[in-house]
Amino acid sequence: MSKKFNDTILRAYRGEKTGHTPAWFMRQAGRSQKEYREIKKKHSLFEITHQPELCAYVTRLPVEQYGIDAAILYKDIMTPLPAIGIDVEIKSGIGPVIDNPISNVADIEALGELEPEKDIDYVLETIKLLTEEQLDVPLIGFSGAPFTLASYMIEGGPSKNYAKTKALMYSEPKTWFTLMNKLTEMIIVYVRAQIQAGVSAIQIFDSWVGALNEADYRTYIKPTMDHIFTELKKDNVPLILFGVGAKHLLLEWNDLPVDVIGLDWRTSILEARNMGVTKVLQGNLDPAILLADWETIETRTKAILDEGMEDGRHVFNLGHGVTPEITQDTLKRLAHLVRAYSER
Amino acid sequence: MSKKFNDTILRAYRGEKTGHTPAWFMRQAGRSQKEYREIKKKHSLFEITHQPELCAYVTRLPVEQYGIDAAILYKDIMTPLPAIGIDVEIKSGIGPVIDNPISNVADIEALGELEPEKDIDYVLETIKLLTEEQLDVPLIGFSGAPFTLASYMIEGGPSKNYAKTKALMYSEPKTWFTLMNKLTEMIIVYVRAQIQAGVSAIQIFDSWVGALNEADYRTYIKPTMDHIFTELKKDNVPLILFGVGAKHLLLEWNDLPVDVIGLDWRTSILEARNMGVTKVLQGNLDPAILLADWETIETRTKAILDEGMEDGRHVFNLGHGVTPEITQDTLKRLAHLVRAYSER
Repeated sequence: MSKKFNDTILRAYRGEKTGHTPAWFMRQAGRSQKEYREIKKKHSLFEITHQPELCAYVTRLPVEQYGIDAAILYKDIMTPLPAIGIDVEIKSGIGPVIDNPISNVADIEALGELEPEKDIDYVLETIKLLTEEQLDVPLIGFSGAPFTLASYMIEGGPSKNYAKTKALMYSEPKTWFTLMNKLTEMIIVYVRAQIQAGVSAIQIFDSWVGALNEADYRTYIKPTMDHIFTELKKDNVPLILFGVGAKHLLLEWNDLPVDVIGLDWRTSILEARNMGVTKVLQGNLDPAILLADWETIETRTKAILDEGMEDGRHVFNLGHGVTPEITQDTLKRLAHLVRAYSER
Repeated sequence: MSKKFNDTILRAYRGEKTGHTPAWFMRQAGRSQKEYREIKKKHSLFEITHQPELCAYVTRLPVEQYGIDAAILYKDIMTPLPAIGIDVEIKSGIGPVIDNPISNVADIEALGELEPEKDIDYVLETIKLLTEEQLDVPLIGFSGAPFTLASYMIEGGPSKNYAKTKALMYSEPKTWFTLMNKLTEMIIVYVRAQIQAGVSAIQIFDSWVGALNEADYRTYIKPTMDHIFTELKKDNVPLILFGVGAKHLLLEWNDLPVDVIGLDWRTSILEARNMGVTKVLQGNLDPAILLADWETIETRTKAILDEGMEDGRHVFNLGHGVTPEITQDTLKRLAHLVRAYSER
């Protein structure tokens, strides 16, 4: 490991003062990068993640190219599911497709348990390669949250309205909680294995949970999330929770034992504070802005950084993942802008 | 017109007391109905709307089957666009697809003007058939709002993140407002023609505007919406505004000269009141609930009706459109439940 290890983001995640606003970009390793596009011509996402050297290269590339403060492990939120018996395929232009969606308690009871050393040894090896040898910034590990994973497992793929998922949740709460418990166990084992292999922070993606209202979140989701974060808290790495379209759930999230809340672009840093959110905040430039002219990008980025600096507990990120149309050059300029403007 | 014309919903839209909570269901004419599915085997949506007798039949069928308090004209929010030069095709399983999306000011300037008597005579004839002869409940007309229409016109179809739309909005505000003004003119002409032909209320669907935050809504959308509603207010029919995932915009909407705000399931009636929303409220059973067991449907529906009756200014609806998986029988039971439970 390099002597000049940049731990700025970890200090910011703990709420400490830092010399600049640290930054990373969700989905920073992806189709915006020409090197990535070349690799994807030959290998699928799962093929890349199964080759630790290649996966480590894909993971660290944006750090080297953009000069940002963290790497996020290149993999998909679907990564652990095949090991427990869910046949996932990532289809181009669609997303994860599952041939054997679950629909009843027997399907859930048939799910296996994740054994990290056996099932995702390639993930752990990639983490070790990166953290023991290659990276001079922290590596962030991640997992999907139970609702978001369940939505794919029940719908069989991406969904607009999560109707089957919700119908199961409302009609068969016992079955629902059996599934939530199963996924909770898996997530804890999965995340803990990533931490033990060397990641320095964990982001839990509950990307689609904003489809629920507050009352249903409290009933069907919050106890599960509380259990997960309470358990992971013992591992003593910063825990980040993120989802889109979840402004109405921010105060529920704030009750959970997480360290950081990731905002999408619908809630500004100061709005979140005014609402009563007390955690460190991460976010929240709308990736769509990165398709606008540079002047717009600059103005909007500075406005977020200004609010973050006024607040004092802010890590810069996008409000959702980088989309393929965003250029590598724009991301590089953005990273430079964030660093230069926030240096203090 | 029948002597027993049921104007309950119009009185409720005006904030008057009614003998029961009136109800209709967004997308009530659709694939839940076996008669509709039969017709769709032979005719596309646009083919149906171009045949006034058939379109009137499709429009009034759910009223007759479910015993609800309003019909909504069967057509698509894309209906007026071909007349101004946008080539729309409704593709099964995708939605509206536009072969000639707009990207610059020249494209916008090339758009024509809507001449209702010439361009959408079939819509007006359907309205006349329904309101002069066939219906004993009010007919609701509708239009897409500028942002939602623009999103299709710019993206070329349905979108997950509206990135091109937002990029144009942020980068070229002058071009954006040229487009907004063009659509505003079209919408006013379009809606007014529907009113003159006989519809008794208008719902404006700004289905996707929840993708914007409050600040951007105020800058890029609100002046346009204010203009539209101020103009339509002169026509003296109830004006309803609806969108999904727009809880964060409800107070902005409440500022507009609308009579009714449609809620999705993320905001309950009493929550909206506590937030400061003063308009008559419409909503908001999550259509996903209609795939759950009847006990769940009943409990959830009664909870909404209870809040609505406590509040006193509520029209029952779903929180988004009926999905094809929902059965005709469920919708019929739901309509009966709403009427029986709310009779006072």
